[in-house]
Amino acid sequence: MDGMDMLEIAVEEARRGLAEGGIPIGAALLGPDGEVLGRGHNRRVQDGDPSMHAETAAFRAAGRRRHYRDTTMVTTLSPCWYCSGLVRQFGIGRVVVGEATTFHGGHDWLAEHGVVVTVLDDARCVELMTEFIAAHPDLWYEDIGEN
Amino acid sequence: MDGMDMLEIAVEEARRGLAEGGIPIGAALLGPDGEVLGRGHNRRVQDGDPSMHAETAAFRAAGRRRHYRDTTMVTTLSPCWYCSGLVRQFGIGRVVVGEATTFHGGHDWLAEHGVVVTVLDDARCVELMTEFIAAHPDLWYEDIGEN
Repeated sequence: MDGMDMLEIAVEEARRGLAEGGIPIGAALLGPDGEVLGRGHNRRVQDGDPSMHAETAAFRAAGRRRHYRDTTMVTTLSPCWYCSGLVRQFGIGRVVVGEATTFHGGHDWLAEHGVVVTVLDDARCVELMTEFIAAHPDLWYEDIGEN
Repeated sequence: MDGMDMLEIAVEEARRGLAEGGIPIGAALLGPDGEVLGRGHNRRVQDGDPSMHAETAAFRAAGRRRHYRDTTMVTTLSPCWYCSGLVRQFGIGRVVVGEATTFHGGHDWLAEHGVVVTVLDDARCVELMTEFIAAHPDLWYEDIGEN
């Protein structure tokens, strides 16, 4: 499964989040053969839960595992420090990022620490966030802890 | 409220987790006057949820907030990269750590990035983790993504 195929799952999650009135960021944790271990989207608005960033939601949905080195986290947006820390702590081997234009998180830091990082610069992902940020700047800045 | 008073809340949470059969790490997010905004403990075992590290549980329990710069995260153990990333991303102003002897996470990195960090080197916290790791090494290494 290549990066673009993986990204489809994350984009589907992001759109699901948007349809629910939430912040359109989606992610999935995939196994070595591309199988979906867990998938999810940002749930700040839907659940009033600031801890459920998309990557954390996907990681959570995958349940308990002994290790993550052969797993890939695919996400529509560059992971923030919280979700980058998740990847580093649990030794997730690879990260596929839809775009890092509207937000530049910790993916360079992950690459420095041995994570295989691919940034796809996907136009759909850029559009999802560009439109959302323009429409709901307060929600977006709340979600990344900025004023 | 000084660091030791704050730590009491985190230790209480860690002991609650231990009594439930879980990993004994507790945390709380406190407001500028020491009021508890949220508190929690590691819930990997109890909920089968690998994303509920103590700091994330406390952050989650506090609900949505516009900013965190005047808040303090108190935790019985040095925060791992995941929970350190949480502190950095959301701009939590201060971190009080019970101990960093049994596990050295990202608290130095947080201090480098402007977070006010206090490590208390509390004997009760060291004992809680030392005994737990000796009794349940598999659970502990699973919780920090090590083999």
